[in-house]
Amino acid sequence: MTKRFLVVGHKACTTGDFSLNDMPGGAGRMDVLCRCVNSCFFLSHDLRHDVECFLVLLGEPEPPKTILIKGNEVRYLSPDERSAGSLIKKALNLPCGESFRESTKGIYVRKGNLKRLLEEYDFALLDENGKDIRAIDPVPESFILSDHHNFTEEEEEMIKNLPKVSAGPKILHADHTITVILNEMDRRET
Amino acid sequence: MTKRFLVVGHKACTTGDFSLNDMPGGAGRMDVLCRCVNSCFFLSHDLRHDVECFLVLLGEPEPPKTILIKGNEVRYLSPDERSAGSLIKKALNLPCGESFRESTKGIYVRKGNLKRLLEEYDFALLDENGKDIRAIDPVPESFILSDHHNFTEEEEEMIKNLPKVSAGPKILHADHTITVILNEMDRRET
Repeated sequence: MTKRFLVVGHKACTTGDFSLNDMPGGAGRMDVLCRCVNSCFFLSHDLRHDVECFLVLLGEPEPPKTILIKGNEVRYLSPDERSAGSLIKKALNLPCGESFRESTKGIYVRKGNLKRLLEEYDFALLDENGKDIRAIDPVPESFILSDHHNFTEEEEEMIKNLPKVSAGPKILHADHTITVILNEMDRRET
Repeated sequence: MTKRFLVVGHKACTTGDFSLNDMPGGAGRMDVLCRCVNSCFFLSHDLRHDVECFLVLLGEPEPPKTILIKGNEVRYLSPDERSAGSLIKKALNLPCGESFRESTKGIYVRKGNLKRLLEEYDFALLDENGKDIRAIDPVPESFILSDHHNFTEEEEEMIKNLPKVSAGPKILHADHTITVILNEMDRRET
């Protein structure tokens, strides 16, 4: 089973000319997405090989783009935000079309939006009003989250019929939500 | 109830002259500690006011130092690693003695090691061989974790009698562990 997390970066920069020193500002909160990448993949002295992370970047100047990171292929990724940011920069510097093109090992980029991914995979929506992940059996394989912004009205329309799942009683940042969901999945597998 | 997380940074720099652009390298994996700060405090559009985070820094050139961040007082803290790193730098640039001295709002620094904190509070040890947090009632209030290094033999001797608590079946990074523990505490409070 492949686990998938899709994070929508509503203002995240879509070319590679942002500064790693200003990811919260000039790069449109790319730092949020970098922390989500960390949460998707890092274990103590290991990577989660069964996870794929999709980042849908909707900021200027070339939206929409989608970055895909595959846990079973990725190389050169360290846990710090700058490391993920640097690999995302490289991918965004690559000319891309409608199909995924590999940038560095295990990291891919294509033109494409949320709608296309919704057609490709069955996602559940991580939402504070959803059903508690601990009460769901079986746990879904693929999840959608937003960055620090709410989904737009247009996006809400696309995702309104997805099953809604909650990570707990408090509203968490996207990266913390991924960590909690993966911990529950770890427990189900044991 | 105040929740406390103590993270030992075995190589973390103890003066403020490290570069925010090289926290994994020159600053002795200060990035690990910055992510732990993020996990301790950030909720969506809110901070966890009932958490205190202690960072015990044991790297050169002036070990040991302890940074304390209080969730009910802290200001100027953003979720990105550089933000926490920048506030830690400011605190480490301040001359300090045996008592906590405030650097920026809600962030304190003193000379001092793990032993002293163990005398001040009752901690449980987050350890993969501990009892599952979900099976413990009541949940402890204060937890110790290590950075990416194991505890030293000398530290192991100091903590060997602490109750051991596990966050789940897989060995997680320190920041992810804090996120999982806080999620369980959130659930107990609801």
